Amino acid sequence: MQRTKVADLLRSNEIGKTFTVKGWVRTRRGNKKVNFVALNDGSGINNLQIVVDMDQFDEALIRRITTGAALSVEGELKESLGSAQKVELHARKIEVLGDCDPEKYPLQPKKHSLEFLREIAHLRFRTNTFGAITRIRHAMIFAVHQFFNQKGFYNIHTPIITASDAEGAGEMFQVTTLDLENPPRNEENKIDYSKDFFGKPTNLTVSGQLEGELAALAMSEIYTFGPTFRAENSNTSRHLAEFWMIEPEMAFYDLNDNMDLAEEFLKYLIQYALDHCMEDLQFLSKRLQEEEKNKKASERSMELIEKLKFVLENQFVRLTYTEAINILENSKPNKKGKFQYPIQGFGTDLQSEHERYLVEKHFKKPVILTDYPKEIKAFYMKLNEDNKTVRAMDVLFPQIGEIIGGSQREEDYGKLVQRMREMNIPEEEMWWFLDTRRFGSVPHSGFGLGFERLMLFVTGMTNIRDVIPFPRTPKNAEF
Amino acid sequence: MQRTKVADLLRSNEIGKTFTVKGWVRTRRGNKKVNFVALNDGSGINNLQIVVDMDQFDEALIRRITTGAALSVEGELKESLGSAQKVELHARKIEVLGDCDPEKYPLQPKKHSLEFLREIAHLRFRTNTFGAITRIRHAMIFAVHQFFNQKGFYNIHTPIITASDAEGAGEMFQVTTLDLENPPRNEENKIDYSKDFFGKPTNLTVSGQLEGELAALAMSEIYTFGPTFRAENSNTSRHLAEFWMIEPEMAFYDLNDNMDLAEEFLKYLIQYALDHCMEDLQFLSKRLQEEEKNKKASERSMELIEKLKFVLENQFVRLTYTEAINILENSKPNKKGKFQYPIQGFGTDLQSEHERYLVEKHFKKPVILTDYPKEIKAFYMKLNEDNKTVRAMDVLFPQIGEIIGGSQREEDYGKLVQRMREMNIPEEEMWWFLDTRRFGSVPHSGFGLGFERLMLFVTGMTNIRDVIPFPRTPKNAEF
Repeated sequence: MQRTKVADLLRSNEIGKTFTVKGWVRTRRGNKKVNFVALNDGSGINNLQIVVDMDQFDEALIRRITTGAALSVEGELKESLGSAQKVELHARKIEVLGDCDPEKYPLQPKKHSLEFLREIAHLRFRTNTFGAITRIRHAMIFAVHQFFNQKGFYNIHTPIITASDAEGAGEMFQVTTLDLENPPRNEENKIDYSKDFFGKPTNLTVSGQLEGELAALAMSEIYTFGPTFRAENSNTSRHLAEFWMIEPEMAFYDLNDNMDLAEEFLKYLIQYALDHCMEDLQFLSKRLQEEEKNKKASERSMELIEKLKFVLENQFVRLTYTEAINILENSKPNKKGKFQYPIQGFGTDLQSEHERYLVEKHFKKPVILTDYPKEIKAFYMKLNEDNKTVRAMDVLFPQIGEIIGGSQREEDYGKLVQRMREMNIPEEEMWWFLDTRRFGSVPHSGFGLGFERLMLFVTGMTNIRDVIPFPRTPKNAEF
Repeated sequence: MQRTKVADLLRSNEIGKTFTVKGWVRTRRGNKKVNFVALNDGSGINNLQIVVDMDQFDEALIRRITTGAALSVEGELKESLGSAQKVELHARKIEVLGDCDPEKYPLQPKKHSLEFLREIAHLRFRTNTFGAITRIRHAMIFAVHQFFNQKGFYNIHTPIITASDAEGAGEMFQVTTLDLENPPRNEENKIDYSKDFFGKPTNLTVSGQLEGELAALAMSEIYTFGPTFRAENSNTSRHLAEFWMIEPEMAFYDLNDNMDLAEEFLKYLIQYALDHCMEDLQFLSKRLQEEEKNKKASERSMELIEKLKFVLENQFVRLTYTEAINILENSKPNKKGKFQYPIQGFGTDLQSEHERYLVEKHFKKPVILTDYPKEIKAFYMKLNEDNKTVRAMDVLFPQIGEIIGGSQREEDYGKLVQRMREMNIPEEEMWWFLDTRRFGSVPHSGFGLGFERLMLFVTGMTNIRDVIPFPRTPKNAEF
């Protein structure tokens, strides 16, 4: 008999009909006459209540229905007398597909710490929290593709292995097939990279932007969505060595078009989450409130769904970096020395505390800062006529600070080469990038959204290791 | 004025209205009175014809309208007198956004070889062929996500960097942050991997399947879609060092369910291509016919769109490997010694020539072979009761042979461990994989589709380097 998903059955009105469900036992409770089994198959946050009439089943079978065991149950859908659910399945046949020794199963029917669950990341999909996060992560992936597809953007798979290290976005991982114990050496006793797989040193990409620009300058509007890597030895709740990035790149877009797209994109994703993941969001909202119940009211996060609506319902405030510095310099926390990093005029690199002050205290709206000092931004950003600032934009959100970074790109060959020289970017390695400015260059713009950063925002989770299935961090590549 | 995309304008009926288009010049031709500029912005295979009244524009401006130059053109949409297009844009304002020196521009308005275009992969998006391939590649990516999303599958991002090398699917790339010139060594003078980023040797993934299984055994139905890697030194038209794979994994699916899904999936993708990419497919079809016009009729490929419909309109034939071996042993080419690899009874590993014989000559339908000898398949495939074969399935297509490989997985802990021992798979490294069989194991299945293999089939291209934007192959990691 065809399996029906638990989530579909919970929405069903077909009382009196027979269904088969398959899934994993979350809990079993009851008495000598009747047992209640909570079954989950990953299709939603809510379990299906299976009602087991103890007279109808072998005791030996029932003893095998333990937390974590896999069951196939055929039964009749009935209205539930309990208040927790509208319907329940009265079991007629039960088959134990896979046993689960309760003495050995690491996931007990109790609250486990997130730290412990990270150590059993292979099983944490079976918890309410990670089930919800997994479903929301999927919904956000799909929403990204749907948004861009509807707009006529093309998804471009930019390379993961790259010989270019020009972006300078951070430490890189080396990729090699050389025998590290005994690598080939040349006459100068240096590693002979001509013997390596690609004939030269290669790394894992830190961004698909540069290759994305190549595609945009032919296809007009493209986006990448792929893994990127940083070999930074940062053991924090905000850093991963391997994470996913979305990088749209658009020919004929100036900085304003870029900001419009970023705002529309973020609102689309958040609206999609509210439309498609409400039950999971409600669960995560309660979870967060529970976590924070011992905090002072002033230290608690904004309620999750309220926070998502806050972004949706407000037009993002747009102002220049210079204006923001003025606000921050004259702000109470700066004057009272409450910022960990005091604002020291134009040129100060903004920290999360400053970004959050602007969003949460000053404007009480999401903020887009533009026109940053060229010194603190990348070489490819378009220089303003003041020769001091570049057409960068950072989108700032409550709680997490910067969620998107982008810019209009320097399309002028001469200016781009000059910036590369000033910043010691090797021109000869970047011949292909420079070619786009030699042959039919056009104004263009783009931005990057760290997907896990988005996931933190949408789920309200606070550690980035909890929003990706198998986090890669220093000393940790398990699973 | 808002830019209108060329593809939208070509479909427009708004004759007499004013539009602005932006794009790159493909060609300019004409006489002293009127010039015709073919403009393309990547939105479709067809160019927009811009009609330039020579009296209305400076000669200096017109001289800058060369192949590859970027223009912004405002003009009036008129019905075209030419037969090649229904509408054309009569220019009122022309701005050259970016010049393109015709002496230096590598892409001349003539036919270039695919080999040459690979060397300028940063510019080949601007050709008809790669524009079409890029649009089809996007359409196929989106169709993959849409198919699984509609079915309630969750997309899982499995790790790219992995410490596991148990799948044994081929040579792997090592990922490291150690200084290769002078790596840290331990007391035994071996490389001290405790000093490496992850504290142990790590590689680039060859498959997301094993991690996908972890997710499926909680979420029921999942799929991965990400880059995978092989460090094989194969310089062929079928191998890439970096390629994209789609790997669905489903709890509660047996081999039949798996075959049903694979067939439905492939048909969905091909129908999607026919529904959304017809103009590009028609272009590629003509291109292929042109390429093959000097071949003997018997050596020519099936016409591209006919070939796609061949898959759609036929139910896939399902038979066992053993049955296929019988057919092949008794086939004409085998008896006449025409196979490069003669069939040597049960146990023979099938080659592309055998697979194509079954599909193209014998059945004249796509074929799914099942129940292969365990010796030639991976350790995780479910053993049949004959103890000789496993519940594997390969989907075979015309021209390319195997397009999908999959299996029902061994869900029995004891049998799985035994296969691992027989095949020297280290159990202790795979504790997390084995845990899924210890705790609530269920029958489950999955398969892998090499995305570039699909792209070859759908586009009719013959070299895999031409269906991915920036191919990675031995000695080649440019761009």
